[in-house]
Amino acid sequence: MRDNNDIICGRNSVLEAIRSGNMVDKILILEGKHDGPTNTILREAKKNKIIVEFTNKSVLNGMCEEKKHQGVIAYVSPYEYAEVDDILDKAKAKGEDAFIIILDEIEDPHNLGAIIRTANLCGAHGVIIPKRRAARLTSVVANTSAGALNYTPVAKVTNIAKTIEELKKKGLWFVCGDMSGEVMYNLDLKGPIGLVIGNEGSGVSENVKKKCDFIASIPMKGDIDSLNASVSCGVLCYEIVRQRMG
Amino acid sequence: MRDNNDIICGRNSVLEAIRSGNMVDKILILEGKHDGPTNTILREAKKNKIIVEFTNKSVLNGMCEEKKHQGVIAYVSPYEYAEVDDILDKAKAKGEDAFIIILDEIEDPHNLGAIIRTANLCGAHGVIIPKRRAARLTSVVANTSAGALNYTPVAKVTNIAKTIEELKKKGLWFVCGDMSGEVMYNLDLKGPIGLVIGNEGSGVSENVKKKCDFIASIPMKGDIDSLNASVSCGVLCYEIVRQRMG
Repeated sequence: MRDNNDIICGRNSVLEAIRSGNMVDKILILEGKHDGPTNTILREAKKNKIIVEFTNKSVLNGMCEEKKHQGVIAYVSPYEYAEVDDILDKAKAKGEDAFIIILDEIEDPHNLGAIIRTANLCGAHGVIIPKRRAARLTSVVANTSAGALNYTPVAKVTNIAKTIEELKKKGLWFVCGDMSGEVMYNLDLKGPIGLVIGNEGSGVSENVKKKCDFIASIPMKGDIDSLNASVSCGVLCYEIVRQRMG
Repeated sequence: MRDNNDIICGRNSVLEAIRSGNMVDKILILEGKHDGPTNTILREAKKNKIIVEFTNKSVLNGMCEEKKHQGVIAYVSPYEYAEVDDILDKAKAKGEDAFIIILDEIEDPHNLGAIIRTANLCGAHGVIIPKRRAARLTSVVANTSAGALNYTPVAKVTNIAKTIEELKKKGLWFVCGDMSGEVMYNLDLKGPIGLVIGNEGSGVSENVKKKCDFIASIPMKGDIDSLNASVSCGVLCYEIVRQRMG
């Protein structure tokens, strides 16, 4: 195993990594495995000139603790971060109003992965994370993103508040999710938008919140304080989707 | 440590467990810890006649791998499952149309916990899970639910399809989340409703799907297949909330 390598476990994630056309250095497959999805992976690997090796269960189990490798593991290169401009360019290329998710210190890699997965599916053009005090792109994130990390650009910036200011000059509006805000159904969330999601424990930081044009709240009827960060993000993203479709 | 005990880690989760008025047998607190939240826990514990012991960091770290105990751990009794009728009674007591989340073999305890958390906050009256092939109520689920498990009843049934049939006789409509369905914004999701969420890998099983009155799809614009199960559940729940508010 090379030093800088990371691994991806499971048939879907490996197949997505191959099809995205980058990152995969080598694939390990459980010897004797011949089901449909595994054969698809073999075919795609051949097409993309990726080395395939066969190995036994204990090797695979040793590499993928906790996760289900389903008999397939890929070695991938470290993830490349995008630039903020790449995200804007993606929106431009699609002829769509920019839709960016900004994560203000999300710490849990499972949340980061689930949010990148949501970003991909709801039509957001990219995700921005801060360089410090936040989950980075690791194999846990890639696995949890279910392949989305191969398609959705993730940019890393030094200062979230400053990035928001720069993006405002380019015509984006910013909305953050916070209990103190107006119920999201009553806000106009159309147009070029940046959605800010705060830290799992402390929410959106004050200096970031005051840069936002709107504060959106999700209606809460229950006994506890807040939704899981990736669930909040999904609910807010799909309110944006609904308004854009309307 | 008693055999049947389970533990809850972290200040918010412990405080919620105490305030819910059940379950907590004993609390462990890091010696010398005197911040506001910890003092609140001490006060609440005294009021509820719960034994408190002080201990050192290594004991707490040893009990709470990976999770952040924040200097506070509670020993709790095993979770009690509710009956399906308890969930219906809760809706009746609030004078609301029943809103139940039915999980068709959710396997990941983090998803189960996040869904119970969402259920609590979106105003669902309870969650139904199957006895077999599904995550059960453990301390991981309790932690991920951020205290919601103390308020939101969870019932365990032998056969999801049969339970749906019985609940239909009591006036509930059933909708499941599946890509094959009608876009959720176009469905009428008002009235007494059961929302069915399928397994992380295989989705809603065929025998359950055919018991449902509607199939609702979340609009997908991306390159990958599906949202995380707890995110899907959150998005569908809040579409129900939106329609009920309208």
